[in-house]
Amino acid sequence: MSAPSPTEYGVGARFSLHPMTSGFVPVILDALAAADASGVDVSTDDVSTCVRGPEPAVLRFLCQVIGHAAGTGVHTVAHLLLSRGCPGEVTCELPEGADAWAPDVDLGLTSTGLRAGAHWSLYPLLDAGTADADTQDHMAGIYEAIDQARSRGTFTRAEHYATRLDGDLAAVLSTIGEGWLLAGRQVQHVVSHATISLNSPSTTDAGADR
Amino acid sequence: MSAPSPTEYGVGARFSLHPMTSGFVPVILDALAAADASGVDVSTDDVSTCVRGPEPAVLRFLCQVIGHAAGTGVHTVAHLLLSRGCPGEVTCELPEGADAWAPDVDLGLTSTGLRAGAHWSLYPLLDAGTADADTQDHMAGIYEAIDQARSRGTFTRAEHYATRLDGDLAAVLSTIGEGWLLAGRQVQHVVSHATISLNSPSTTDAGADR
Repeated sequence: MSAPSPTEYGVGARFSLHPMTSGFVPVILDALAAADASGVDVSTDDVSTCVRGPEPAVLRFLCQVIGHAAGTGVHTVAHLLLSRGCPGEVTCELPEGADAWAPDVDLGLTSTGLRAGAHWSLYPLLDAGTADADTQDHMAGIYEAIDQARSRGTFTRAEHYATRLDGDLAAVLSTIGEGWLLAGRQVQHVVSHATISLNSPSTTDAGADR
Repeated sequence: MSAPSPTEYGVGARFSLHPMTSGFVPVILDALAAADASGVDVSTDDVSTCVRGPEPAVLRFLCQVIGHAAGTGVHTVAHLLLSRGCPGEVTCELPEGADAWAPDVDLGLTSTGLRAGAHWSLYPLLDAGTADADTQDHMAGIYEAIDQARSRGTFTRAEHYATRLDGDLAAVLSTIGEGWLLAGRQVQHVVSHATISLNSPSTTDAGADR
């Protein structure tokens, strides 16, 4: 397939941002206003914010929004859903499994100086009965993504239902974005979820023992 | 398959709870302490809490924890990951696609009096090349789950990457749990994610226009 546009391929994210302070509204609004939204469409409702556009622009926007909120020093948690390969809503507007495609994985995020811990899940979504269901391998992309996390130094451990990542916010988000794209070379529809925590007051630093 | 135990089948959840107040620590700790944890194993770290056990006990625990936190009147957001059919961590300890199994979908949650809005995603995870990959149908379970949400009255609309649900917290959680089990009758490994918001100060009530 020649490179489809992000809109054609359904590339985007849904996220929510939780600065754990009674004054959370200005922290969220300031963070959304401070981030570079060039190249992305952003829409917010009372549950989450949808960001659509090319993968590097989506990840840059997420990194800047989360980084700006956490830069206040407030304990901040973000939850991300990344999706590509399934434009539309309940039903996909592309033929499923027709062609897996992903751009280069270099997302170009710059270090934030903010330490983040995350629980990360990666879901390459195969469909039964499609032309290449017998040859597509969803585990291959997952192993590549975990190898990439190890070489980045962000992999901490596998846990129930998720993988623990730790590192600079940009390194954690790069790991998540790179995994999403690596799996996307094998399987058309790939979704990833992550819960990312910064400035946690918890005395248990789960990432410190690796 | 005769009914596997929840541990054998890898049934459980990972969730995080965000009461949006500077005094979030006691709200979280009180909510965890107040919920009925009989029948579930609960472990908390600095990013999320893992709950393992039979589906009705897991959902009851989640409903009570979230309900207790939101019952303070504070704007509270919870993120859930529900998983069944893939015990183990990176690699599954069951043969994939071997046998899909799910108990009755009656979860028995009682109304909380708390209104919740949610973005919900349901992922039946098929594997290529398994014995029944040609006969398993991941969309069938998704359509059944959405029909169930419509008959419960919690379905609001399909959005990018998620379905919007609104209703009593117990009805929203029942919809999510029932969808997880309905899809689990067709496909062994089923994961569901949801972002659930209560007491939002947002003037946009996205659920009000249905």
